[in-house]
Amino acid sequence: MGTAQNTADNVAHALFPASRRIYLRGSRSDLRVPTRQILLSPTRLPNGTTEENPPVTVYDTSGQWGDPAFHGDPHRGLPRIRETWVNERRNTRQPTTQLQCARMGIITPEMEFVAIRENLPSELVRAEIARGHAIIPANINHPESEPMIIGRRFLVKINTNIGNSALASSIDAEVEKMRWSVKWGGDTLMDLSTGANIHQTREWILRNCPVPVGTVPLYQALEKTDGRPESLSWEIYRDTLLEQTAQGVDYFTIHAGVLRDFVPLTSRRLTGIVSRGGAIIAKWCVSHKRENFLYEHWDEICDILCASDTAVSIGDGLRPGCIADANDDAQFAELKTQGELTRRAQARGVQVMNEGPGHVPIHKIHENMTRQIDWCNGAPFYTLGPVTTDIAPAYDHITSAIGAAMIGWHGASMLCYVTPKEHLGLPNRDDVRTGVITYKIAAHAADLAKGHPLARIRDDAMSKARFDFRWEDQFNLALDPELSRSYHAETMQGNSAKNAHFCSMCGPNFCPMRITGDIRRCTHAKN
Amino acid sequence: MGTAQNTADNVAHALFPASRRIYLRGSRSDLRVPTRQILLSPTRLPNGTTEENPPVTVYDTSGQWGDPAFHGDPHRGLPRIRETWVNERRNTRQPTTQLQCARMGIITPEMEFVAIRENLPSELVRAEIARGHAIIPANINHPESEPMIIGRRFLVKINTNIGNSALASSIDAEVEKMRWSVKWGGDTLMDLSTGANIHQTREWILRNCPVPVGTVPLYQALEKTDGRPESLSWEIYRDTLLEQTAQGVDYFTIHAGVLRDFVPLTSRRLTGIVSRGGAIIAKWCVSHKRENFLYEHWDEICDILCASDTAVSIGDGLRPGCIADANDDAQFAELKTQGELTRRAQARGVQVMNEGPGHVPIHKIHENMTRQIDWCNGAPFYTLGPVTTDIAPAYDHITSAIGAAMIGWHGASMLCYVTPKEHLGLPNRDDVRTGVITYKIAAHAADLAKGHPLARIRDDAMSKARFDFRWEDQFNLALDPELSRSYHAETMQGNSAKNAHFCSMCGPNFCPMRITGDIRRCTHAKN
Repeated sequence: MGTAQNTADNVAHALFPASRRIYLRGSRSDLRVPTRQILLSPTRLPNGTTEENPPVTVYDTSGQWGDPAFHGDPHRGLPRIRETWVNERRNTRQPTTQLQCARMGIITPEMEFVAIRENLPSELVRAEIARGHAIIPANINHPESEPMIIGRRFLVKINTNIGNSALASSIDAEVEKMRWSVKWGGDTLMDLSTGANIHQTREWILRNCPVPVGTVPLYQALEKTDGRPESLSWEIYRDTLLEQTAQGVDYFTIHAGVLRDFVPLTSRRLTGIVSRGGAIIAKWCVSHKRENFLYEHWDEICDILCASDTAVSIGDGLRPGCIADANDDAQFAELKTQGELTRRAQARGVQVMNEGPGHVPIHKIHENMTRQIDWCNGAPFYTLGPVTTDIAPAYDHITSAIGAAMIGWHGASMLCYVTPKEHLGLPNRDDVRTGVITYKIAAHAADLAKGHPLARIRDDAMSKARFDFRWEDQFNLALDPELSRSYHAETMQGNSAKNAHFCSMCGPNFCPMRITGDIRRCTHAKN
Repeated sequence: MGTAQNTADNVAHALFPASRRIYLRGSRSDLRVPTRQILLSPTRLPNGTTEENPPVTVYDTSGQWGDPAFHGDPHRGLPRIRETWVNERRNTRQPTTQLQCARMGIITPEMEFVAIRENLPSELVRAEIARGHAIIPANINHPESEPMIIGRRFLVKINTNIGNSALASSIDAEVEKMRWSVKWGGDTLMDLSTGANIHQTREWILRNCPVPVGTVPLYQALEKTDGRPESLSWEIYRDTLLEQTAQGVDYFTIHAGVLRDFVPLTSRRLTGIVSRGGAIIAKWCVSHKRENFLYEHWDEICDILCASDTAVSIGDGLRPGCIADANDDAQFAELKTQGELTRRAQARGVQVMNEGPGHVPIHKIHENMTRQIDWCNGAPFYTLGPVTTDIAPAYDHITSAIGAAMIGWHGASMLCYVTPKEHLGLPNRDDVRTGVITYKIAAHAADLAKGHPLARIRDDAMSKARFDFRWEDQFNLALDPELSRSYHAETMQGNSAKNAHFCSMCGPNFCPMRITGDIRRCTHAKN
């Protein structure tokens, strides 16, 4: 672990402005839920007095890296905050997975942690997990991670993808992107590396990552066959699963629902198969004239996952890759199989979610959600966008945020981010930031629409700050304080602008909020 | 008109790549509908032969500026393509407005123009206008403009706002932004200038603008009172209307629905009144203890508009300015009044649309649309976003594109763009481009969902180009060819990348599209 020291220094350690780290305590002293409090300035009332504005507490995914008191070193990794909890369960012969515990009526520290984090009762958390409607991806071998929950009754989460390919990137860059991603609000992280040093890159990421890490084990298995899908075997794949569960990967994407019979259903598609995993499995099935070995060995896979409480995200290898292919027979045949696999995995104690599209026009989004809930036993749905039009490469964070917000509202539990580079290249740091913020927007818009009890507090604080012309508070409450501050500074210069009761959009004579203030003062004075 | 020559040179005259201007002919020789044809390269088939891909024809808003054969000069303005049509109507004593003509069964050249542009029957265009369900904003004094239609049965349109304020911008910059806006796809343009030189700025814009131009006459009227709302009068306002109709403004935002009784309904709002026009009128009503003079003089206003076929966009002065205030009593009281004013204006032959919000959470969007259709006689709805969360200044093009796509799908006919600078400052050229492209995405996603006959052609061509690895065609088909090409070039360097059968996202061993191609060749060979 020699070269990553630079990485730590490279990451912008600048914490969010006017913020402090506050830990909420649970029922035990080692249960401390991190939050970020944004401090606000007072409102000046017309009568010359002031009114305090309480700080706004927001969900914080940055882990110890976001605590100003923490001086970490990627060499040593993060503190192992869940180690005691895992050991206690082992010593008291409790079951391993959160699902098994929930079914036995046990509220684990992880469940209590997420209940505090979401401001919801622990019993609701337990019940939703027991039903298979929510999961806490938390491999016992990744004790550095802070528990989070994925399910329809909870805040909508976002996943960010990082990972090198044969052509680009480095370990340093990937660790830096990881820290960058959790700083801006990524709830989970998938390491999709396909090039050299897969194992080592993952090790660096896991030991330093405060959020659950997912992978697609098939990518590493394929590296072991020098990139020949037809040379894959169950044994190679199984060994890869064992290697990665031991390392601490919190959830695996497994394309077990791509059955041999479904491959011909893609033959008249405009863009065929667009999932890497799906294409690899399809090639294997066609080459060997045999059923998908992941499907055939599903029970063994589940038992491997159970032993470390690695969750499974059943892949959608036949997801549509364009508007023309949305909601077709291939896609829904696989979704139905995902349902069968979900029930079998849940029966063996594995926490399960399902992956979903992809590219779907707006009017076909709702059907995806209702079928998934119906066919997959209410397991969390984890979608990629969906992209709602194909014509805007370089803006696919936006084409997909539209679909993501809608499907999040309808019930998708986690949204896989899309960056501006989608369909064009690998994201750099700026792209990761844009992708994360865009997906925080989609998730939050869905939370507002679903009426989550925590959702509207920040919006209302922002709106009040706008009405009061508290510019600094507006920047500090923003998802991206830095960019909003710099945009404002572009047209309004000098320190006085920060106190101006108007902005450059309307100028001083036209500010409707100032005029509204005048009207209220006027009406008030006359009463 | 001295200083704008530089402007012309400053505007990136670079036309879209691999494109040619094609005019579709109508029933008369002076009726030529501009389109842009994007030329595509052939598909290489597995058997070594090639298959031609037909060019894709797209809607083109850039006017003569987008014709490589045109060498214009902002000094002289654009050719007056509608002058003959207007004169013919006058000479044959036909009525002035498109609505009046439509009701008499007349299909005007403007109606035929938009029918060709939308690939729909002229009779449908006439019937929708006659019902008041669609409008063609086309002031007889703006003969430079190319007809376009706004209505639920047609392609969803987007409006861009430009305009200087007392603090920033210049005439040159505004004309440049106008040309920039129509280049990227803006369907109409509102000049919201509030600072110095309002008349002159507008003159430059109108004489060079190929799309309908809208204004808020109240802004200029207020300049005439040195910014004092209480000094406004019907006479000042009327003279401003006459000045602007004579100049050629195609539609006016008029806040006639802000009644005196509605002002107290905003008193418990978190952000009060956020429309400039709404706030000015409210202040006037409160100061004078009188009813809104725009409401009182509505019939006279309509007669002024009728004489030049200036359309009216009835403003939503009490639109919500934050999530907390959405769909409240003040908003809906005004919407109901907009309905009354709509029917009265339509009865006098005026083409009408209604402005809508603003800030609305996802789950409250649909109600806005259904009430507007219900209360406002099916007149086109023209919305600003809506923004679906308040917490992301610097990304409000995205927070609002989510709402815009949804309300477009539900039936909004035109979407007013929002740039990244919304709530923070005035947009620069880059912001205008980002705002326009983002709103083209929202409008197109809505068109796909509504099933407009022209909508999916470009998406499918893009998807086929993706599957074929025709990279240049992908860039050329994109809404923003320049940016997508440059993003691709960042990670894939050298000319060979343009022909690569993979991209940097997955690398050569993992490209699912390449593998799909292999599977199909393999399956095909065996059959």
